Amino acid sequence: MIPKAIRLLISELEKLPGVGPRSAERLALHLFWFGKENTQMLANSLLSLHSEVIICPQCGGLSEKTGCEICNDLTRRRDIICVVEKPLDILSIDKSGAFKGLYHVLGGRLSPVNGVGPEDLRLAELFARVEKESVKELLLALGMDVESDATVYFIAKHFQNSDVKISRLAQGIPVGASLDITDGLTLERAIENRLPVNGV
Amino acid sequence: MIPKAIRLLISELEKLPGVGPRSAERLALHLFWFGKENTQMLANSLLSLHSEVIICPQCGGLSEKTGCEICNDLTRRRDIICVVEKPLDILSIDKSGAFKGLYHVLGGRLSPVNGVGPEDLRLAELFARVEKESVKELLLALGMDVESDATVYFIAKHFQNSDVKISRLAQGIPVGASLDITDGLTLERAIENRLPVNGV
Repeated sequence: MIPKAIRLLISELEKLPGVGPRSAERLALHLFWFGKENTQMLANSLLSLHSEVIICPQCGGLSEKTGCEICNDLTRRRDIICVVEKPLDILSIDKSGAFKGLYHVLGGRLSPVNGVGPEDLRLAELFARVEKESVKELLLALGMDVESDATVYFIAKHFQNSDVKISRLAQGIPVGASLDITDGLTLERAIENRLPVNGV
Repeated sequence: MIPKAIRLLISELEKLPGVGPRSAERLALHLFWFGKENTQMLANSLLSLHSEVIICPQCGGLSEKTGCEICNDLTRRRDIICVVEKPLDILSIDKSGAFKGLYHVLGGRLSPVNGVGPEDLRLAELFARVEKESVKELLLALGMDVESDATVYFIAKHFQNSDVKISRLAQGIPVGASLDITDGLTLERAIENRLPVNGV
């Protein structure tokens, strides 16, 4: 009933996360009205994705084929590595501008329930990096769940007899949030980790 | 910081309706992990969109380049035309299976406030079609808003001295809805248009 090319596009769009059958229809129709030029620009950027982007063999993040911009950036501190779960996390942390060291992507979190063990993550690569280079601190920028806690514990245990400092992102009230919308566990952590107020 | 090809894809995805900066980032990363083959299939379906699909010069809907499947379908009734606002509406109505006539896309609704007059819609084409072919009924499948009402009124007025029957989609309680979640205006229309129950 509707043209084959549109049906095909709808079925391809439906495979994307968060796109249901109705949104896929709407997107496909929008792309048609959007104009040939715009749609081709999107198609071309999709095609160049896998030809120009690789996984950096060192940090495990996304990198230009010509070399990882972060690992090769000599203005960054090389003695602190921020450990994250996935490449998108690098983007979030780097946007904040508060971290100027290197990164290491684990590719997941330890989860015995789901069959994810240490050998499934890029942990051996992390330990080798720390040993080879003179890394002084690992900032574990993982989430606030059981799997992240297990991963933090595993890494901290590995380094317990070394001089490498292991730190974790602070837990507390988000900036701009009010107390009445903050959940109990977050409040508990914020009280446990309360900060001294000096010299007011 | 993140590879140029990904930044470019994110900016292209952000142009889509309902896709904000965060979803664009997530989609771009997903497409990278999704694999080269899948991403190329999506890109190719985008590229074939404008080379294979045209607007049918008769009904104004989306059509294969080789001819409109609906207008050329001889099993459809040719004496009733369903008038819709946009091509996507054809898809919704046809999926219901309750209509087996032809379609006519207006390309909008009359809206003097927004400067949309009769000459901006495919109304002249509709009137010419009705005159040329032996159309007996126009089913106006427009929405429930002021602009749709104005458009319905305009078309009905044009045909007031002809034999062409003008009908509109029934207004009432949606199938499966309960009364307590139905708004007052819908209830009012449902009472006004109440249907006789015969021969129980």
